[in-house]
Order: sequence, then structure tokens, then C-alpha cells
Amino acid sequence: MSKKVVYRFDEGRGDMKRLLGGKGANLAEMTRHGLPVPPGFTITTEACLDYYAAGRRLTQEVLDQMEQAVADLEQRTGKGLGDPERPLLVSVRSGAVISMPGMMDTVLNLGLNDETVEGLARMTGNPRFAYDSYRRFIQMFGDVVLGIDHYLFERIIDERKEERGLKQDPELAAEDWQWVIERYKALVKRETKESFPQDPKEQLRRAVIAVFDSWNNQRAVIYRKIHKIPDHLGTAVNVQMMVFGNMGEDSGTGVAFTRNPSTGEKVLYGEFLTNAQGEDVVAGLRTPEPISALKRRMPGIYEQFREITDRLERHYRDMQDIEFTVERGTLYILQTRSGKRTAHAAVKIAVDLTKEGIIDRETALLRVDPDQLNQLLHRRIDPEAQLDVLTKGLPASPGAASGKVVFDADTAEQLARDGEKVILVRPETTPEDIHGILASQGILTSRGGMTSHAAVVARGMGKPCICGCEELRIDLRKKEFRVGETVVREGDLLSIDGGTGQVIRGEVPLIDPELSGEFQEILAWADEIRTLKVRANADNPEDAAKARRFGAEGIGLCRTEHMFMEASRVPIVQEMILAETPEQRQEALDKLLPMQLEDFKGIFREMAGLPVTIRLLDPPLHEFLPNLEDLLAEVTRLRLDPESDPQELKSKETLLGKVKALHEFNPMMGHRGCRLGLSHPEIYAMQAEAIFRAAAELIKEGVSVQPEVMIPLVGHVNELKELRRLVEETARRVMEETGCQISYTVGTMIEVPRAALTADAIAEEAEFFSFGTNDLTQMTFAFSRDDAEGKFLHSYLDRKLLPDNPFMTLDTEGVGKLVRMGVELGRRVKPELKAGICGEHGGDARSIAFCHEVGLDYVSCSPFRIPPARLAAAQIAVQSSRKAQQG
Amino acid sequence: MSKKVVYRFDEGRGDMKRLLGGKGANLAEMTRHGLPVPPGFTITTEACLDYYAAGRRLTQEVLDQMEQAVADLEQRTGKGLGDPERPLLVSVRSGAVISMPGMMDTVLNLGLNDETVEGLARMTGNPRFAYDSYRRFIQMFGDVVLGIDHYLFERIIDERKEERGLKQDPELAAEDWQWVIERYKALVKRETKESFPQDPKEQLRRAVIAVFDSWNNQRAVIYRKIHKIPDHLGTAVNVQMMVFGNMGEDSGTGVAFTRNPSTGEKVLYGEFLTNAQGEDVVAGLRTPEPISALKRRMPGIYEQFREITDRLERHYRDMQDIEFTVERGTLYILQTRSGKRTAHAAVKIAVDLTKEGIIDRETALLRVDPDQLNQLLHRRIDPEAQLDVLTKGLPASPGAASGKVVFDADTAEQLARDGEKVILVRPETTPEDIHGILASQGILTSRGGMTSHAAVVARGMGKPCICGCEELRIDLRKKEFRVGETVVREGDLLSIDGGTGQVIRGEVPLIDPELSGEFQEILAWADEIRTLKVRANADNPEDAAKARRFGAEGIGLCRTEHMFMEASRVPIVQEMILAETPEQRQEALDKLLPMQLEDFKGIFREMAGLPVTIRLLDPPLHEFLPNLEDLLAEVTRLRLDPESDPQELKSKETLLGKVKALHEFNPMMGHRGCRLGLSHPEIYAMQAEAIFRAAAELIKEGVSVQPEVMIPLVGHVNELKELRRLVEETARRVMEETGCQISYTVGTMIEVPRAALTADAIAEEAEFFSFGTNDLTQMTFAFSRDDAEGKFLHSYLDRKLLPDNPFMTLDTEGVGKLVRMGVELGRRVKPELKAGICGEHGGDARSIAFCHEVGLDYVSCSPFRIPPARLAAAQIAVQSSRKAQQG
Repeated sequence: MSKKVVYRFDEGRGDMKRLLGGKGANLAEMTRHGLPVPPGFTITTEACLDYYAAGRRLTQEVLDQMEQAVADLEQRTGKGLGDPERPLLVSVRSGAVISMPGMMDTVLNLGLNDETVEGLARMTGNPRFAYDSYRRFIQMFGDVVLGIDHYLFERIIDERKEERGLKQDPELAAEDWQWVIERYKALVKRETKESFPQDPKEQLRRAVIAVFDSWNNQRAVIYRKIHKIPDHLGTAVNVQMMVFGNMGEDSGTGVAFTRNPSTGEKVLYGEFLTNAQGEDVVAGLRTPEPISALKRRMPGIYEQFREITDRLERHYRDMQDIEFTVERGTLYILQTRSGKRTAHAAVKIAVDLTKEGIIDRETALLRVDPDQLNQLLHRRIDPEAQLDVLTKGLPASPGAASGKVVFDADTAEQLARDGEKVILVRPETTPEDIHGILASQGILTSRGGMTSHAAVVARGMGKPCICGCEELRIDLRKKEFRVGETVVREGDLLSIDGGTGQVIRGEVPLIDPELSGEFQEILAWADEIRTLKVRANADNPEDAAKARRFGAEGIGLCRTEHMFMEASRVPIVQEMILAETPEQRQEALDKLLPMQLEDFKGIFREMAGLPVTIRLLDPPLHEFLPNLEDLLAEVTRLRLDPESDPQELKSKETLLGKVKALHEFNPMMGHRGCRLGLSHPEIYAMQAEAIFRAAAELIKEGVSVQPEVMIPLVGHVNELKELRRLVEETARRVMEETGCQISYTVGTMIEVPRAALTADAIAEEAEFFSFGTNDLTQMTFAFSRDDAEGKFLHSYLDRKLLPDNPFMTLDTEGVGKLVRMGVELGRRVKPELKAGICGEHGGDARSIAFCHEVGLDYVSCSPFRIPPARLAAAQIAVQSSRKAQQG
Repeated sequence: MSKKVVYRFDEGRGDMKRLLGGKGANLAEMTRHGLPVPPGFTITTEACLDYYAAGRRLTQEVLDQMEQAVADLEQRTGKGLGDPERPLLVSVRSGAVISMPGMMDTVLNLGLNDETVEGLARMTGNPRFAYDSYRRFIQMFGDVVLGIDHYLFERIIDERKEERGLKQDPELAAEDWQWVIERYKALVKRETKESFPQDPKEQLRRAVIAVFDSWNNQRAVIYRKIHKIPDHLGTAVNVQMMVFGNMGEDSGTGVAFTRNPSTGEKVLYGEFLTNAQGEDVVAGLRTPEPISALKRRMPGIYEQFREITDRLERHYRDMQDIEFTVERGTLYILQTRSGKRTAHAAVKIAVDLTKEGIIDRETALLRVDPDQLNQLLHRRIDPEAQLDVLTKGLPASPGAASGKVVFDADTAEQLARDGEKVILVRPETTPEDIHGILASQGILTSRGGMTSHAAVVARGMGKPCICGCEELRIDLRKKEFRVGETVVREGDLLSIDGGTGQVIRGEVPLIDPELSGEFQEILAWADEIRTLKVRANADNPEDAAKARRFGAEGIGLCRTEHMFMEASRVPIVQEMILAETPEQRQEALDKLLPMQLEDFKGIFREMAGLPVTIRLLDPPLHEFLPNLEDLLAEVTRLRLDPESDPQELKSKETLLGKVKALHEFNPMMGHRGCRLGLSHPEIYAMQAEAIFRAAAELIKEGVSVQPEVMIPLVGHVNELKELRRLVEETARRVMEETGCQISYTVGTMIEVPRAALTADAIAEEAEFFSFGTNDLTQMTFAFSRDDAEGKFLHSYLDRKLLPDNPFMTLDTEGVGKLVRMGVELGRRVKPELKAGICGEHGGDARSIAFCHEVGLDYVSCSPFRIPPARLAAAQIAVQSSRKAQQG
């Protein structure tokens, strides 16, 4: 028997999405539940794949089963395809497994030809409607199936309107449309060298082919790439009896959400237009009325619709986005699907549905996208602000920013150095613009997509970015851009919203994120369910306080070098580096000690009762010294200047010598981390002393302190062993001197591949592991992030050589294998070993899921990413327990 | 029952080395075989460990058993310790498990005191001999046990000689020695606040303690570090009846090798001195005669000795180094051990012993150290040359070099730039001297050991180096050094032999290595036994030819970038890099194509019939452009100079822009390898075309060609997949155009950790894997080799944080785990996958053993390392099969 490739709506089910596509499965599900859905059938996604496999040809199976389905449809509706008396008209729509709104093609009113149009006119008693429908059909078919430019059709209508002195389409009469139809047919003949097809079965066949083809049109391919939808799914095609909302004042069409998609409020929300077809709403020629107007105009229909929307929401247990049409007083539901919503609405709807008893808390947690939640946590434009929106581009990196427009990286750097905020506007960016991106508040490009250079780099740096803003006409020579008539020049103020893609003239007020009650509520539910703890990466008391407000359960990474880099301390740090004797070095360290001590006290106080992982100094010492090139120039100048102070020259020369001596070819893999601790034990000793003295002072104040001392960049257990001894000796000494018992642990970063590979040996000397997946990713891929993101990574993502940016989403196959190995080997030796992650991946939902699966105890991320991380941790807990129940 | 910690020589056996030490086991073995060994006993290494465990105290067990053993000895010899009539004198010597010649302490003539010396004088009828022996004993005991400086004793003798107007010790009479003895005893009293111990049992106890202590003297500790001898073995102590070679003309002492230790020739080789004790030979006061003199002087003894040496050699199946003494016409064998020998002798002796039927071929192969063999393959000093040897240091990096002496890195660099050959002489080197080391022919330091900075860096660079040459008195200010009276100034010619540690005045003639018949013979045996193939890393026809002469079975790594770096080609390569249009770039590539093609033809021709693995371009493009700093200076100069050519300025500015754009923070992990191939496919396409056209041309000439195209730096299978397609398309095209069938394979380097971790996926697209363990080690450790070897690695080795330099000996725990994983995962998917190694480890014996164990098909190394690699591969094959037979 041949494979079933065509399903009547009443043969399918809601769970057959993979086969019938989202729309087809929905139509089937609604039909099964007795909703007033116009009858029709679905050609499966398998048929689409067969079509491609056969070299873009419909298989005989499909042709046969389609014919049968049409016959069924004719019988059920009492109409006939091509029947001049009772013509059956159908819509032909795509329906992918995962919704790709607007990306693929649709043909309406199929079945009309020179004969059936007359029948339609007679049947409806409305010739104007019939001819209008026919010309719409020719136009859509011409565009979608025959590939004739849309504007060629529009030109014909314009010509007619001009001739007749009319402005708007509705003013055209039946004869006008007949005139237009003749010209349309002539256009088709001229463009395609064939007559417009009159046989409705041929029309149907060709429309189905066109829909299948549209799976691979450029729009669709790009959309899939952006939304990470696999290319091999194919699309289904839905063929459905047409109903008409434009058959008079007792007809109409609309779209409604069961709740407000931007606030989440529980009100029917949508638009309705009487005597109109769907495309009139889209075309914007007539302004639709709010859905409430339906209540006034057709109270019976409204009630029936209300009741149906409630049923649909309860049935699908989610807010629905419903398309409907009223044909001469009869309500038809054309489509229902889960409605897109803002992050804010997503949270409110999930919480409300739970409280209404429609879904449980676990389901509520799964309904909110942690990445989307992330948007709520960036600075955003004050919603009260009046915005002069110029245009829109792709929302490539979230957050909002304002600044002066600049058109090149050098100017951006220069202005930024003078304290100006700038927005860098470029056709696209290249590695040569990196310093400009770094100097800017935000980036705006006219070309390139979500994986373009600008997008990848900006997301990496956490800067707002809008890409592919195609309406921008940039003139680099004149240093200006145009959007339509508006000209924006270098130095003009501009704002961008990287979360929405809006480009706005002038400066806009930005507000800090504020979190709603529902937001707090859903996070509280998340906390009850998740097993992964969430900690913060925080280097100072302010960030620690912020993190705690966001729900951090400790600090997973406190980078002590940030304390060294404070402007007032850099001279002392340099003094320490340049010291020529151990005494001089100790002197400088003695000055740094009280400063570090205060830092640690502040952090410990904010995190009272919670663990704080402190990483000892990690970066190479040359990071604290002046730049080699600048210094070289300075020394050259001093040497050439006969007036220069010989003392100054000498000291600069000494500095230059040190900078040269410390210079490294690959500083990422050079003299840093524990290597520095081993060659300069006095630095680590000072840091350990500051940690333990801070702890002792707070303990005396009655504050509970849990320091975890972390040694960075360990590759061999001996490194850890030796430095651990140093830390323990310091702790012992401080405890003796202060008479204070401090409970602390010593552990290590696992960020060097060798550490993961030999984690069993390393675990012998560590109480905890913290996977530093930023560096681990760099080493495992041999990607220097600074170089890769600027130079080749965007092209790798664009060409799908890599599925994701491994610095944002953990590469589970490679880097993840090392993480898994590290945890397993470590726990084999020390089952109680605490393990967490402190790379940026700690804030990424998919990476968090992986961390849960490999059994980490916690993730640590930047304070703003804590709420999404709490949610993501809960989601994976729910999914795992559901999977366990199923399996 | 108490543990046995003291063994009489006739109680031990040769296989009890671990317990009795090498010397003790040998004495026992010789005793068991009836050789004339003076009787005695051995205190075990366990007793030494107990001594340390007890806090440096002899345990009661040892004291009791020693007493018993002394009583036994007294009974057997008919003499008594402290017996004034028939005094028993003994030697007390160390004897470690692994020989550490000269590193630990010895006391002779123990048992003498004010009374027994008179007995000895009576018994021997030779008072002069007796007093001389007593003063020698006081002197050695004073030095070794009491820690009194040697020169204080020497001064007393000098005083006496001066008083008496004598020049040499032998001229001193019995009375003189009596005078000396009194002064010695006074010296001891002054220095130690106690009298010289008169009780022979106390003397013995304290001597044993001193020997145990000497296990941890500085010399011994350093020696163990250099020779990788574990610290926990401890030493045994041998107590043996003294025999005297200085009892007249019928007495004497000597040392002999059963074969010539420098040539391997089968002749008794050694020295003999009549009427002398061993230390007279060492002290060099009298010149010993060649061993042949014994034949003349004591023909009977000579015959007996000859017979014994033959027996010993056959018994131990190896060339022996034998110490003997004749006491009044009686021959005593004091020691035998396997003799140290030159690499040359090692080869000849192994081959000769095999031919004599004493050992089999497998044993012969195990007798030659591949690392030592390596010395035979470096340039060396012409052995015919007359050498003015100034002094000797530690042989830290093999090879010989001559050049002008310089005392600082900057001068070294400057002179080298002017085309001078220089030898850099420093007290020690630091990271700031790297450029000087790079510029020099060889390095000589007065301080530091085998793992000092200079040693590690020089070995890494393959430059000759002598370290820790303590006789050198360097005066950096005066720019000169002194050895004794000799002064060597900056600019003077000096030569060093890093294989022997010899420092030689002037320039010496160097010769290329030449390989003996035995050398070829043993390698032929190696080839029969080994299963690992040995290939060469070679980038040009000359190296390929050399490699083939050394026995290479193909090329494992041909680095195509070296072809790009040829001076005449660099401008074209730059033209290619700077091209602004694809056409311009293609034009440059079209010029490079015929050059690469000729390179490949030359290499293929030399390797006819053997596989040649060609790695496509690997380094980042900026390596082919001028240095950023130089260019910056040049542009600055041009900008400031009002006369400068604006055209030149513009072109330099363009170049500078490109250099800046290509600049990378961590070039090791940047835009190189396959990343370059993916962004610049035209470069790889050109290289592939050159490879296949070269192959086609040679095939037409009838030459058999086996190209293996290797893609570098692959981390994800998609990279390989895409580039493999490019290579295959090029191959197809060339084959079509030339009408020539080329059989080739495509494979990849495994040098990025991720590649090893995902080797199963990668194997789907690869016919072969070549483990690039240089880069793999860098990434796995996160060690940038350029930085690590200059900055911290030497200290890591010094402090034993790492057991070996992982760039020289493969880190089997970490990097090796990835290699093993890579092979296993790869072969799981593709059992026939060919796998090899092409990092420097491919030439290191221990690493080769690992490669054999994990099942690699071949190792690839530089041409000169091929013979040692062939030998090492055979050794591991022998060891594995022996282990398999045992297991």
C-alpha cells in the first residue's frame, strides 16, 4: 500500500505536528473538537521531502491522494473545483513543523478562472466581490507561482485609478476589476509566455509546488538559520475551503489574542475589520477596529467567538493567537496557535495560568524563555518616552544605548577617549573596527545578519547592536546616513534598542530593569524545583549586593585582579612588579594588603552566610604595566629631546626593559595564573593573608564567612599541591595570630585541558573544582577568543561550520566532554568534591542544562544573568524529572 | 626475628641490587663465583632508609648485626679490629642501587689508631707505609666524617715538605708522617673540640653514618636530579677488608675495562701503578702505566687477571670496568661493574658481543641508549684536532660550536646580525637573554645545572650548551673570563662541545657525523624487530634525501610554509596577502604555483615509492609580513621627513594597516591552519594543485608517488569536511586535465584538544591522523612554548613540579591521554585509520615507547633523529614482547 501523504483535517490530530506541520495539526485538532473550521486537507511534510528527493517533482502518490482529497472536499461542501455553478475556492498555505511566520508563500482564492468567476458572482450576487477575488488570485498566483514582480500588478491598478480619478481600491467597481483582470492576464502572458492557467487542478498542483519551493526561498533559509530550525524538516501544505469576510456588512475578518501579548493581561486582544479579507488588514489600507467592536457590531458572533477562544486557551493550556472570519453571519476559525509575547507578558501569563489552575507550576516554568527573560534585565528605554523611531533592523544584541553617531572606528575611539558616548554606524564591521566597537555604546549596521561580525562581537562584549538595518543609506564620505528623507550626520544623537531593533533619533531616557511581582513569583517557584545552585561572578561589594538581590546563593568567582586594576592602586602594583629586591617587593605588597583586606571584608559582609570563591591573581603581570608601543615612543622622544630629564629617561628605560622582559608571544598561555603564584609566592601569600584577616575580623563581628580560595590555571597537581600548602600555612598563621577559627576550603579552576584530563590526581589536593569554561573553550578549540571573535568566528557561524558560538553556548561535544571527564574523574577519587562552573556559560540556558546533566553543584554568572539562570536550572530539573518518569 | 640488614659478601647475590646496592651485589656475586675478593659485608639500603626514618640514627638492629659481621670478618681474616698485633683495616664505601660514581663518600684504612699503627708497622715491616696509611685515614675521616676542610690537612703536609726542603709526598719518611699525624690530631681537636676517635668500632659506626648522610649531600642530590634517579632508594654501605697496593714492588693497583670504552675495541684497556693505593692514581701525582705493563711486571698476576676479566665479562654479558689491587703478589678484585662507554663504543660492543655469541640481537639493541646515539649524529669536533681544553662543565645540550666570545645578549644579537658567529658566555641566563641565545652558536654558563634556564632553552632550540662550568670566573664589567691564569676576552675565539662539556680555546675543526658499519648493522637489526615505522619531518628535497639515507620510510610532515619563507618568494607571498581583489590575489598565487610545484617534485622524487605527508599552509599570514614595531618606526620616520616620497609613505601606510589588521593577541590560537584555508580557499587550492600537478608529472616519468594531503589545526569535523572537498575537487580536476590517475589520501593533524576529543567524528572524514604533539602539548597544558621555555618552565623542572620538559618527552598522563583517546575513537569508527606522530616527540625514545604502546603506525622526526628513533622503536618492541612472554 502506498504511504499516506494527504490527511483530511478530520483525520489528523494535534500531536501530528511533525507530519502535518504546526498549522495542519492545529486545524485537525480544532476540527476534531467540533470548532467551526472551514474543511480541507493537509499534504504532509514527508510529501515535501519526497518532492525534493525526486528532484523537485510531485510524486504520483501525492498527485493521486490530492485528487481523492479534492473529491472528498467537493462532496462535503457541495461545491466543485472548476464548477461554474457552485465553484469551490480554496486557500493553499504552507505549514512548517516550527512556525516561521510570513516566511513562506500562500495562495488564496484558488479555483477561480474566467468561468468560475461568473459562477461566484451569481452565487454571491456580488460581481464586484467576485472580480476583485479573481484579480487578487491572479495577482497572488502571479507573484508566488509564476514569479512576476508584485509591483507590475500594482501598477495596473494605479493606472486604472488614475484614469478614473479614484484614490482607493474600494472605490473601484466590478467593471474596473474586469478591466484589471484583462490587463493582468495580458501581463502574465507577456512575462511567462503562457496564458494564465484556467484549469483549477493545474492551479492547485502548481500552487502546492510553489509552497514546497518556498521552503528554500532566501527569507525562509535565513529565518531558519537565525532561529536554529533544522533545514531537513520540510513544510506541509494546507488546502482549505475559502471563506470570505468581504461579502458585506455581515462579514468580516480579524485576529485575536486570548490575552494581551505585550502585558499579559487577561483580556481578549485583537483587531477586526468588517467586510474585509485578511490581507486588507495586513495591507493597512483600512484601519481595523479593536476586537471589542465585534461585540457591538455582531453580539451573537462575539459571544460565540469568546466562548471558542476560552475553549481554545483551555484546550491548548496557553495564550492563543487566533485568526477568524465571519462569512455572512457564520463564524469560521481559520487558525489558532500559541501567541508570541513579550518577556514581560510571558512571565505574567505563565503565573496567571497557573493561578487559574490551567497549568501547573512546572509547566509555567517551561513557558518562559530564559534568554528572553534576559532582555528584562538589561537597561531599556523608558516606556513612557516619546520615541522618534527612524527605522528597524535585526535585534542582534540586547540592551539600549544613546550616543553621538560616528562612522569609523578611529573617530569612535578618539571621541570615547574624550569622554563622549558614541554609536558606531557602519555598513558592516570587520576585524579592523574592533577598537571602535570597544569604544562605542552600541553598534548599528546596514548589512549583515544575526551572525555577522558586528553581531557576534557585540554580543561577546555585551553591547547593544542592531544589524542588517536595510533602510539605512550610509554615505561614509559625507559622514552621514539617510532613512528616507531624514539625514543623520556625524555627531548627531542617536539611540538604539538592541532588543527590539528600533533605531531612534536623539537621546532617549534609559531605565534600569525592574522586576514585577510575577517575575519574583515564578523565580520563587524555580528555586523550589531546581537542584543546581546559582552563584554570581562578582568582584566588589556593590556587585555582590546586586547579585544577592537577584538571588545569588554565593559568589562563584571573585576575580582579585580587578582590585589590582583600580586606578589608585596601579602605581603600587607597578612598584611591586618593578621591585628589584625582595624587600622592595614586600614593601609594595604591604601597601596592597590593607586595600585587598577591605575589599574582601566588603564582599564577605554582603555575602554573609554564603560561600565566596576567591580566585588568586590570574593575569600576567604585564597587564599592569604601560603598553609596550606607547612606552617605546615615549623613550624615543626622551632620548631625542636634549632638554629631557636624564632621571626620567632612566626610569622610563628601566620600565621599558621590564615591559620587554615580560612581553609574551601568547599571553593567554604564558606566565599567569598559578605559574605566577609559584614564581612570586609573596603575591599569593599577601592575597591569602588579606582573605583570612578579613574573614577573622568579620567573624569577630559575628558575621558568618565561608571563604573558598581558588588557584587558577592549574594543569598539574603539583602546582596545586605547592600553592595549597602556601595558603594553608598563611591560614594557620593568621588563625594563630588572631585567635580566630576560620573554616575555609582550597580548590582550583579547571580551565586547562590537562586539568580535566588528570582530574583524579588533582582532586586529591582540591576541595572544589570550578570549571573555567571560557579558558577551557579557548584551549580546547585552540581559539584565542580575542582573535577568533574578531577574525573568523562569525564566518564559521555563518557557514554553519560550528552550530553555536562556543563562547556563549558550551560546546558539549568537545569542551563538555572535558567537563564531564573532570567531574567524573574528580568524584571517583573524592565523592564529596564540590563542582561548579564560572565561565560565561554559567548564564546560558542550554549550557546550564548541560551542567545539570553532568551533575555540577552550581553555576556562577554575572549578577544580571542570575534570574534567567535560576529559571533555566528549574527548567532542566523539570525536564529531567519528566524524562525520568517517562523512561 | 629481627630483619636482616647486614649481609656477608658470601650471603648475597647479584640479583639483590635493590637491597645491597650495585657494588654490594657485585661483590657478593663475585664472591659466590670464587673470585679473589677481599672479604667483607654489606649494610643494606633498607638500613639506610631506617636510618633516615629514625631521624638520622642507626637502629639497634643495624648496630647488633654490624657487630656480628665484624666478629665474623675478624674470624675469617685472623685479624682483629683494634688488635695491636694483627690489626684488621677496612674500607667503608657507599653503594647505591643505581651507580652514582664519585657522588658519595668513602673512608679507607679504618681501624688504625695510635696503637694499631704500630702493629701495622711491625706486621708489614714498613713503618713508613703504616704512618702514611694512618695519616691518610685521619685525613679522610676528618674530611668525610668530621667535616674538616681538606686543604687544612694539605697545608700541614706542605709545611713539613717546606721545612724539609722536599717537593713530593713520596720523599717524606716515616718520621715526617709521624710529625704530620701529631699535627693532624691537633687539627682535629681544634676543629671538632674532641680528640680523634681511637676506638675502631666508634670509627666504623661514624663512618657508616657519614656514608648514609652522603646520600643527601648536594652533589648526590643534583646527580640524581640530572639522571632522574629516585630520591627514595637510599644507599647501601660496604665494609671490606683493606688490601694494600703500596706494600712494595710486588704490590700495586689498577683499573681496567674489558674493552676499550671509547672505541669499543676488544682489548684489555686500563691503567696500573706499582706500589700504590687507588687514590694515588686518582690524585695524579704519579702517572700510571698502561695495563699492558702489568704483563711485563707481574706475568703470573696478569694471566690470572686476564682470565678473571674474561670470566667477568662472560658472566655479566657486558663490558666490565674492574678495580683490582695486588698485595704482595696476591691479586684482589675490588669491584666490577658495567663500564661506561661512548656512544661509538656502545654500538661496537653491542654488535661484537652478539657476534661472539655472548648476547643475542635483542639484548644488543637494548644495550645502546638512543639518546646517546643522538650524540653521534650531531656535528662534532674533529677527533684528530689538537684541543686546547680550558675546562669542563655540564654537557647540557649536545653538539659542538665555535665563535667569538660575547658576554651579553645585545652584543650577541648585534654581531650575529653582522654575520659573526658568537658563543654567549653568562654566569647564567634569564628570559631577558632569549634574543642573545637565539643569535648565538652555543651557550656557556658558569652557574646552573642541566635544568637551568640556559640548558632548557638551548636544548629546545637544538643549540650546543655547557652549563655550571664552575671554574669560569666571569667579569661582566671587564668583558672577560678567567680559568685559572688564562684570560679570555670579548671577541676571542672559543669552542664548546655540548656533548662532553669541554670548553676549548680558539676555533676547532668540526666534522659532520659519519656512521660506522656496526652502527648500520645494529640499525638493520632494529629494523627487523620494530613494528613502528619511522618517517622524517622534511620540507625540501635535500632534507628528504638526507632522511632517506638515515632510513626514513617516508615523510610524516612536510611543512609547506617553509617554502613560502624562502627570501625570493616572500615578496610574492606579500603581494598575495596584500591583494585587494580576488584577481590580484590569484595573480600572485599563479606565480607561487610553479615554485611549489617544483618543491613538491623534488621531494616526491627523493621519496619515490614512499608516502609523503604534506601539510597545507599553517602559520598566520602576518608571519610573512614585516614586524609591526619596525614598520611603525619606518612610517613615523617617513611622515616626519619632509623629503620623503609620498608614494612610498602611502604604500608603507597600507602595509602598516594590513599588519595592524592581521595583528593577533595570541597568534598560536588565532587565524591560522585550516582557519586560513577556510577564509582563503584559493591558497589551499593553489597548494593542492601544485601537489597533484607535481605528482602527475612524476607519474608520467614513471616515478611512484604517494601524496598524503594533511589539513592542519582541525578542531571540528566540519572544517576538515569542507577543505577535504576542496582538495578532492582539485585532485579530480588535475587528474582530468593531465589524464593521470593519482592515488592519494586526505587526513588531518590532531593537534587541537577538541580534535582528539571528537576523533570519532573527525575520522569519518580522514584517511589518516597525524598527532601534532607540539601544539597539542601547548594547548593541553596551556603553555605557549615560546613563553614557557623562556619564562617559567626551567623553574618547574628544577622544582620537580613537572617530571620532564613536556615539549621533549611526551606527557603521557595528560597529552598522552588525548593521543590514546584520539587513536581509540578514530579506529572505533575507521579500523584501518593510519595514525602517526609528527611532533618533536617523534624523536624521543620514551615518547616513541608510548607511541608503540598506543598502537600508532609511525613516528616522524627530524632526519638526524631517525637512527635513534629506529633503535628506540626496536627497543620498545623487544620490551613489549618480553613483557608479553612474562605476563
